[in-house]
Amino acid sequence: MAEQFDLVVVGGGPGGYVAAIRGAQLKMKVALVEREHLGGICLNWGCIPTKALLRASEINHLLHSLDQYGFAADNVRYDFAKVVKRSRQVASQLSSGVKGLLKKHKVTVFDGSGKLAGPGKLMVTGKDGKPAAELQARNILLATGARARVIPGIEPDGKLIWSYREALAPDIMPKKLIVIGSGAIGSEFASFFLNMGAEVTLIEVMDRILPVEDAEVSAFVQKSFAKQGMKIITGARVQGVRKSADGITAIVEAGNKVQEIQADRLISAVGIVGNVENIGLEGTKVKVERTHVVTDPYGQTGEPGVWAIGDLTGAPWLAHKASHEGIIAVEAMAGMHPHAMDVTNIPGCTYCRPQVASVGLTEARAKEAGHEVRVGRFPFIGNGKAIAMGEPEGFVKTVFDAKTGALLGAHMVGPEVTEMIQGYTIARTLETTEAELMHTVFPHPTVSEAMHESVLDAYGRVIHI
Amino acid sequence: MAEQFDLVVVGGGPGGYVAAIRGAQLKMKVALVEREHLGGICLNWGCIPTKALLRASEINHLLHSLDQYGFAADNVRYDFAKVVKRSRQVASQLSSGVKGLLKKHKVTVFDGSGKLAGPGKLMVTGKDGKPAAELQARNILLATGARARVIPGIEPDGKLIWSYREALAPDIMPKKLIVIGSGAIGSEFASFFLNMGAEVTLIEVMDRILPVEDAEVSAFVQKSFAKQGMKIITGARVQGVRKSADGITAIVEAGNKVQEIQADRLISAVGIVGNVENIGLEGTKVKVERTHVVTDPYGQTGEPGVWAIGDLTGAPWLAHKASHEGIIAVEAMAGMHPHAMDVTNIPGCTYCRPQVASVGLTEARAKEAGHEVRVGRFPFIGNGKAIAMGEPEGFVKTVFDAKTGALLGAHMVGPEVTEMIQGYTIARTLETTEAELMHTVFPHPTVSEAMHESVLDAYGRVIHI
Repeated sequence: MAEQFDLVVVGGGPGGYVAAIRGAQLKMKVALVEREHLGGICLNWGCIPTKALLRASEINHLLHSLDQYGFAADNVRYDFAKVVKRSRQVASQLSSGVKGLLKKHKVTVFDGSGKLAGPGKLMVTGKDGKPAAELQARNILLATGARARVIPGIEPDGKLIWSYREALAPDIMPKKLIVIGSGAIGSEFASFFLNMGAEVTLIEVMDRILPVEDAEVSAFVQKSFAKQGMKIITGARVQGVRKSADGITAIVEAGNKVQEIQADRLISAVGIVGNVENIGLEGTKVKVERTHVVTDPYGQTGEPGVWAIGDLTGAPWLAHKASHEGIIAVEAMAGMHPHAMDVTNIPGCTYCRPQVASVGLTEARAKEAGHEVRVGRFPFIGNGKAIAMGEPEGFVKTVFDAKTGALLGAHMVGPEVTEMIQGYTIARTLETTEAELMHTVFPHPTVSEAMHESVLDAYGRVIHI
Repeated sequence: MAEQFDLVVVGGGPGGYVAAIRGAQLKMKVALVEREHLGGICLNWGCIPTKALLRASEINHLLHSLDQYGFAADNVRYDFAKVVKRSRQVASQLSSGVKGLLKKHKVTVFDGSGKLAGPGKLMVTGKDGKPAAELQARNILLATGARARVIPGIEPDGKLIWSYREALAPDIMPKKLIVIGSGAIGSEFASFFLNMGAEVTLIEVMDRILPVEDAEVSAFVQKSFAKQGMKIITGARVQGVRKSADGITAIVEAGNKVQEIQADRLISAVGIVGNVENIGLEGTKVKVERTHVVTDPYGQTGEPGVWAIGDLTGAPWLAHKASHEGIIAVEAMAGMHPHAMDVTNIPGCTYCRPQVASVGLTEARAKEAGHEVRVGRFPFIGNGKAIAMGEPEGFVKTVFDAKTGALLGAHMVGPEVTEMIQGYTIARTLETTEAELMHTVFPHPTVSEAMHESVLDAYGRVIHI
């Protein structure tokens, strides 16, 4: 006999568990099926444990800059195993937290893999491969996420070639490291290991690192990474690798030149493919394009009663996009008329040193979309708090529609920008214009004043440059 | 012969110099009269150098918590003179920067004190006490600021009793310190010296520290300070002090009990009085109330052509209030119809550990104003980034009008809140309601997600607690 629910969620990552809790808040009887860890990749092998590691690399950087602040210490050192252990403990603490939240909201959790099995039906297969449960619900929400894309010949082997997963629980602190791919994940790992003392080579196929960011941001981070000692090769393809007992050599082609780069370990961070297999999409009206499930702006697929959210549905592959989609989908199921998803209002953050954060359109994309733009810029060297903190590197760039004054995009690189971008995100969500942002009083002395000055600069009214 | 200007600004603090630059942007011929340092108290003896010092105390705290992050170091130490020197250098760098900005905007700077001398006239007296210039302008903007209030018998003596000024260039690192007054200035100094290793006693006349903040914030900071080892006495009056060759004893009465507290130094931070003397207000229609000049919401005083801004015009005594008032006043002079000042949209920050930031009404004030309120709270212990950073202490509290959903106030204590409060400030300036804030996608993983959750909590929709 099938167990009856109002909502069955497949996948316990941020999109899935938030959707399940929202369903419970709306008085639905909810089941959640998760095959591995509650919290998903984000919480267990992504956002959260990387932030714990990056905190360590920030500390290591600070410990080697003490003199500028009037401090000194001898024999500065770290225990790499302890650094990694702390990161794993943080992930495990939060995963337990999610378990507790689901329990509090009376969500029934099934350990196993879910597969659609006809209208309103889902079969759960346990970790032992045996049928574990049959669930029935008016609405089934697929949130099975995504996994690392693999370049043939450079498959993660758990020893010399790491995906994000091995990189988060590394067996050694590599002396020399190659990172392929300079998106958020690749750039964060490259920055972490560099700041922990490794020699790092970052390889990117496009002509610049962080290629989805505004070109000025990419250029600034690239220059900063290089100044910190990172070797960066753009416009580069890895033709193959050669493994030895304890090291790896990458054969890299760039600008018609082939070079060999030797390292202890190699991290592959070349993108994401959706987990569309083995979830029973065959024979349904669910449409899949380039490994991603196609939905309307509320998460509805082509198959009645089947919804999809998060990484499974495509870019941007961000936890907060997934959880917001989860809330929208569940509210739509409940007939609540939520706002549709607008991906241009979703901020993106990269927690390398220097930090990067942005929301909306880059200058180039705004022009491609036909906007006549007004651009403002403000460097942190003109910001008192950044100078007082000893971190005056970076800038804020704002892009406005020259005709309407609408804030099209905001791009930041430097101290604390990942905590600051929400201000511009609120502004974009409220469809604000330059006049309202100029009228806003930003507190002094804060780094966030640069957000104000960048707007003032776009309109010829900047004060501190 | 009087020199002719469109605008004469008296006082080169943040309000004055920003007003002067704005005037220049609007094609006015501008003069600025400053009797001491460009940048005023804020830049030279306030906001900026204290932030440089507080950076040092944060580092000292971190250096004594290394083990939790997997780091270690021997013989951790600081050179107090170097810490202070760095703070002074930051102040001096920024003061030079203001000089450069004024030069770039062709503002004529007069070194000296300005005094109204009849309609449209200002006399400048040089530092030598002799008449230095006679200026004439259609508009004169007074921005002479404020100074520390002094308790009779506890006058700063430059040796044992410090005002903020001596505390910023201290002759010694005190082993024992008494701080009188727990507003932003007192609490920041108390926190700085405590984290640098001093025994600190903080004395407050009201029944709680940081008395202008929401009561829950005050209680949290008080508990945190106490946990860090600070001695706090509230509801207390200092009856007097007794000085010895190298120490000071305060006689403190609280709850009908008198106690004596001994220390190396005492900081008096008991408020502010406006600098209304010797600026020629006598015989004008400028009205003064409780040491502050009275103006309309655009900065206009009772005397035609005379304007006033900043600390001179009263609370909140904040640099960003002053500079925003400066812009409003100058734009009003130019006939531009700026928005009037709304002090409830001005954020306030206190950079102690833990940090405090707020904007709008406290819960108590909202109720006093007749609002039926809905309150949301979210603790940082439910925030993944705060846990990953190792800083899960604090919370966000939001106060909404139960009928309209208007955001009445937001109150934060914990990591990075001073950089985050601008988001709520933008929201308040845009007169946003709970629905728009709930619909905003905050980036994950950031501490700022707690801002979202606090709003969700007010409406029974919180996820992570």
